[in-house]
Order: sequence, then C-alpha cells, then structure tokens
Amino acid sequence: MVDVDGNVILDMFAQFSSTPVGYNNPTLLQAIEENQSMFVNRPALGNLPPKDWAERLKNSLLSVSPRGLNQVVTMACGSCSNENAFKAMFMAYRRRERGGNNYSLEEMESCLKNEAPGCSDLSILSFYGANHGRTMGSLAATHTKWAHKLDFPTVDWPFADFPKLKYPLEEYVDENRKEEERSLGQVCDLIEKYNKKGRHVVGVAVEPIQAEGGDNYASPEFFRALQRICKQNGCYLLVDEVQTGMGSTGSMWQHETWGLDTPPDAVSFSKKMMTGGFYYSDELRPSEGYRVFNTWMGDPGRVVLLEALIKVVKQEELLRNVTRSGQTLLQGVMSLQNEYPHLLSNARGSGAFLAIDGSSGSFRDTLAVRLRNAGLHTGVCGPRTLRFRPMLIYREKHAFIALDIMRDTVREMNDKVW
Amino acid sequence: MVDVDGNVILDMFAQFSSTPVGYNNPTLLQAIEENQSMFVNRPALGNLPPKDWAERLKNSLLSVSPRGLNQVVTMACGSCSNENAFKAMFMAYRRRERGGNNYSLEEMESCLKNEAPGCSDLSILSFYGANHGRTMGSLAATHTKWAHKLDFPTVDWPFADFPKLKYPLEEYVDENRKEEERSLGQVCDLIEKYNKKGRHVVGVAVEPIQAEGGDNYASPEFFRALQRICKQNGCYLLVDEVQTGMGSTGSMWQHETWGLDTPPDAVSFSKKMMTGGFYYSDELRPSEGYRVFNTWMGDPGRVVLLEALIKVVKQEELLRNVTRSGQTLLQGVMSLQNEYPHLLSNARGSGAFLAIDGSSGSFRDTLAVRLRNAGLHTGVCGPRTLRFRPMLIYREKHAFIALDIMRDTVREMNDKVW
Repeated sequence: MVDVDGNVILDMFAQFSSTPVGYNNPTLLQAIEENQSMFVNRPALGNLPPKDWAERLKNSLLSVSPRGLNQVVTMACGSCSNENAFKAMFMAYRRRERGGNNYSLEEMESCLKNEAPGCSDLSILSFYGANHGRTMGSLAATHTKWAHKLDFPTVDWPFADFPKLKYPLEEYVDENRKEEERSLGQVCDLIEKYNKKGRHVVGVAVEPIQAEGGDNYASPEFFRALQRICKQNGCYLLVDEVQTGMGSTGSMWQHETWGLDTPPDAVSFSKKMMTGGFYYSDELRPSEGYRVFNTWMGDPGRVVLLEALIKVVKQEELLRNVTRSGQTLLQGVMSLQNEYPHLLSNARGSGAFLAIDGSSGSFRDTLAVRLRNAGLHTGVCGPRTLRFRPMLIYREKHAFIALDIMRDTVREMNDKVW
Repeated sequence: MVDVDGNVILDMFAQFSSTPVGYNNPTLLQAIEENQSMFVNRPALGNLPPKDWAERLKNSLLSVSPRGLNQVVTMACGSCSNENAFKAMFMAYRRRERGGNNYSLEEMESCLKNEAPGCSDLSILSFYGANHGRTMGSLAATHTKWAHKLDFPTVDWPFADFPKLKYPLEEYVDENRKEEERSLGQVCDLIEKYNKKGRHVVGVAVEPIQAEGGDNYASPEFFRALQRICKQNGCYLLVDEVQTGMGSTGSMWQHETWGLDTPPDAVSFSKKMMTGGFYYSDELRPSEGYRVFNTWMGDPGRVVLLEALIKVVKQEELLRNVTRSGQTLLQGVMSLQNEYPHLLSNARGSGAFLAIDGSSGSFRDTLAVRLRNAGLHTGVCGPRTLRFRPMLIYREKHAFIALDIMRDTVREMNDKVW
C-alpha cells in the first residue's frame, strides 16, 4: 500500500480485514477482464439471475460451504447479511410454532401497520462487545462503541457477557472455564427471562472471535455448550463469520474448529469473501419467494471475484501459509511482550488473526500511529487492543518486516511512562 | 434481453428499474476496462478512500446533486441508504435538542445496552404503501406487502395514508386536492400524537411516486405542503428517490419538479444511480467520524460506472429522450385503455415512469405473464397495477414495439370476463 505522500506501507489491517490477497492480484484482474459483462450488467439476482448463476455459485460460494450447510444467499454487505439471517430465523421459528404457513388475514394485514399479531415481539440474543452490523436490526445485536448506537431507536433484545478470558489461554484453563460458565449461565437466564416476558429468543448470534469488541476469544467448549443451550431452548445459532471467514484464522471457517455435533443453523459472511451473504440449513429456507429479498441481492461481479479468489487460495495453499506466517508473527509479538511486559500484554491469535493489548488506550493509540508512520498499518479494537489482520498472501518475510518495525517503535516508546 | 430459451425480450422492467442504459453499454464497459483497479481493490471508503476519491465524487455524484444539497455519502444498497439517512436525522435532531454534542456518560453507556437515555424513542413518519427498504429500520417505514414484514419484530413508528388520487389527474383536481388534504391532516395529527407519547417524529420519509406500492402519485402542492408541515414541527424531510432518481421521470430528481422553497434535508438513491447513498444538508452532517459508517461504504467500482453513465446521459441527451418516448408510450396505453375500459384504467406516468391498472389482480397477473411470453417484460406493483420502467436509452420505436405487443395481448384477453 502507498500513502498520499508516496510512502510504502505494509498493510496489516487490510481495509478492515476485507482485502484477502493484496492489491491488484493478477488472477482477480484477469477475472474482471474475462467477465466484464458480469460487472456492467447488474441483475436483480433474486428474480432474474444470469443463466449460469447456479454454476457460478457452485464454483464459488458452494465450493467452500461450511460442512453441513448447502443453502446460500448473497447480499451486498455484512449488515444486510445478518439482518436477513435474522429474518430467516424469525420465519422458521414462527413456521414451527404455527405448524406451517397458515397465516391469518389479521396477521397479514397487521404486519403492514407494524402491529401484532403480524409483527412478532421476537428477539435475537447477542453478546456484549459484539459487532453484527449497523442497520437497525443488526445494530440491535451490536454492543461495541457508543458512536455506533447513540441516539438511534432500537428494540429490547437480550445480550449476555462474552467471556473475558485470560491469556495465554493454556495457563488459565480453570479460571477461563469458570468465566465461560458464567457467560453461558447468563445466556440461559436471559432466554428464560425473555421467553417469559413474551419476547421469545429465536436465535443467538455470535462471532467466533469478537473482533471490533477487542479480539476476544472463547474456547471450542464454550461454543459447543452454546449450541447445546440453543437446541434445548428451540433457538437457532447464527455464527457471524464476517470477519473470521475466508481463511485468516488458518481455517476457511473458524467455527469448523469447534467440533460441533451438528452445523450451526446459519453462517454469515462478507469482507474477505468479497460478497456478503449467509449459508443456512434446510430448516431456515423460506417457504415462499420474496421473503428474503431486495433489488440487487448482492452483486454477481463480486461472486466472479470470489471464484478467482478461491482459485488463488487453493493453488497457493494460502491457508497453510496463513498458519505458518501467523505463528511467526505471534511468536514475535510474544517475545516483544516478554521484553516490555509493562507496555504489552495478552498477545493472542488464531492463524494470522492476531492481537496484543497495550498498557492503556493512549499507549495503544500512539503505538498505532507511530507504527503507521514507520510503515506498518495495523488496526485498533476494544479499549486498548492493537490488531493485526495480515492478508492471506503474507509470508514469513512480511512477519519479520512487521516485527522489526514493532520492535523499533516499542523501544522508542519505552522512554516514558504510559 | 434474451431468456433461457434464446427468445429476445424487450425489457421494460429493467431489473426492478435499476438498469439505466441497457446491457453491455460500450461506454460503461470501457470504464471497467480503464479502471480495473477500482473494481479489484475495494477500500474501506469511509476510512481509506483512494487518492482521487474527492475528484471521482465531483465527476459523478456531485455533478448531478439535487439543487441545494452538496453533501453526499455512498452506501451499498437502497435499504442501507435509507437506514443511514434516518441515522443522520436522528443525530441532527438530538444535537439540536442538546444544543451540541455534550453527551453524558450515562447516554454513552446506556446506548450500548439498547437502553434510554442513550437510545432514544425517536420515530420516522412514513406513508402506507411506501417501500423504503427491507432491513429493520427501513422496513419499519415500509408498508407494501406482507411478505416483506410478516413475523419480523419492528418499532412503533407512525404512518399516514398516502393520497389515493383519481386519474387522469387533470380531471379530478378538486377531489384530489381534498384527498391530499386528508392525508396531510393525518400527518399533522400523527406528529402531534407521537410527540405527545414521547416517540418524537424526527423525520418524514416519502417517495415522489410510490412505486412498489402501486405507482401512486401526489401533486407538487402536496409535497410543498408536506415540507411546510415538517418545518413547522421541526422534522426533517427525506425524499426517497431510489426508484425515481436518475432520469426515468424525465428529470434527474423528481422532487426538483415540485417547486420547493428550500431543498429537502436528505435525498436517498440507489438502483439506476448504480451505487446507493444519500445527499444531505449541512445540518445533517454528523459532527463526528464513524457515526455514519460501515466497512465498505459502497463500492468505488459502482461510482466509476456512474461517472460513465452520466457521460452517456448528457451526451445522448437521454432526459429529453425519456420525455419524448415516455409520451408516446403513455399516449398509446391511454388509447388502449379507451378501447378496453372494462380491462384497463388509470394510465398515468411521469417521463417514462408509467403504469396502468388492470380490472383485477388476476387480469393484471395474467397480462404480465402473457406480455412476457410475447416478448415484453413489464413489472407489477400494488394490487392490480402493471408498471413500465423503460431504460433511459429507449426511443419511440421501443414504445411502438411495446404497444404492438400490448395491443395484441389485450385483444386476445378480451375474449373472457376477468
């Protein structure tokens, strides 16, 4: 990446984690060259898809489906992906309650007036620190920064604490398990409470790693238990892989590392997947057309790019690469943290999806600016976390460049108390 | 357009009115060829726009700004455009109430929990029959079809009747004025009622022509009066030009034909504009960064295409063309309606944005299918309306082709009572 003054910068934030394989990737450029009509003719995909659309989906989205999920729909962005996954859950839940689609005239008419019984007081449970998007529905499940939410009307939906784990995880197994049990206990209590007050919890939305919220982790056991709680309470489980999807953790889908007994009910994606959308189970498939619908329903050009991207990821074995270069980077920041424990702590990561905490928000903020001025672009999240979102193509040499800049910058900042 | 069987079809629905200048337009294709990096490198536009972004906006969106509105932001789709225009109105309203941005800690913390005082019980007033989108906020202002809304939770926002005018408008001036006054009276009453019950009406959202709702028109006087009511009550006026924008009515923006004293506070767009987004007044400009924000904030490739599109529209004088070919088409369907008054009525339109009602829903549905099978693709909206959304490039000859197919098809359908 080159800034406005012409300085070369190593981009380890990758447009909010959305650029998978660098700028001007030749395979992606070739895909544009060969498919210009898919970029210039934007169809209403839900209604008049191009003739080869099914084939295109098979070669792209469906070729990397999470295990056990064979249904997919495209959307234009992450917020719309989650909004529509919520809708799919609301519909399936009510269909189950009704034992079919036997809508009453009163339901069909009252919903047009924003009234019951057509509009149901259903809810989605989310976690504090979650970011599921910034349109009203997805924002109601988002709890990260006041700038996202202040002054906007919303709905009364429950949220539980996301576990606040201690790092390194392997040193705090017992404490972390208790913390996760506390969070799961809240989930159970909230489902009971909201069901009792008539705002039935239809689904639970969760990120595999809370990114915007501060790169917060939970264990595979936590997610398996969460799924069990969902099943016991007749809720669906939506895994929001908008930030974790497409390989940056070393897996195509982070939730596949949890060892779930059955797949989640829905998995949303966007960012590095190049197109928004969500995978879903047969049960979540709407029974009528036009229920999950809008004019564009995504953009076929973005799916063309995804098809090319998947080719690059497979040919260059980028998932293996992410794991290797991510390890090098994590080991490097860990040894830096050991050297400057008063400034840096909690180095953590999965694949190349990495983060470290600063001693304070102001230290972290200054560090991010100085790193950028020294040629390393990183991101910030949570109150005092610095996050690395290397692209999938980065090799160990990029980790070494980043670590050199990190080391010099932290050394320079060690001259004062933060 | 060619269907899966290879039949040539005249497309007068244009992908839900979103295709401006036909398929494979050479100027648009050339723009892709010359700007491939804008398609392959998708930046986080709100944070790291490309170096020439301001210039790009000047040459595209800002070169066709509605009079008096110089601020613009891009979004990925129409729903997100309206959601974010709503947000801009909520923020400006609360800033005015507070006399600045002096947020309390309680406000900043409570909003993260979906609670007051941080989350305000503010509302947007809309009209019955409106379609502003399908994410939770924009959907709360949408009142067209049960399929859009059934089973989804929503908020208590007011909506007034949109005037149900009689056509042709010039024959029913007095009756229509009374009907519009009835609607405006409801608007006043609802604002008072919702302000009293603590769900202050911050803004009014309105389409210049209710499209999805049935191609419903109102007079310029209606909209001028609506703006006066907004001003008297401290509400903002958002004109949703997602379907009417970019020339299909013969004007770049339909609201510019109303003779408003001052511009509306916000104008949203998408579809034929190729990118979503909204124009807004200085007063609606957020005072902090990241308030109207998401990862992508639109797509620079779509703005490149818009720049090319504007060139085509100007060079080929397409607005003039729309007016001329639209007149021909309207006159043709009017004479058809005079010939078959028991089957067709209420032919109406602005530019090439045209509609006609069938005698019943089933007649209209069958007509649309038969037209399509005979080579003319049209759209349906409202309970019994057939809508024409010709592309801007269509000439009188296309109107004649459409009319020939219409005439033959209606004649064939005249053999039975519908």
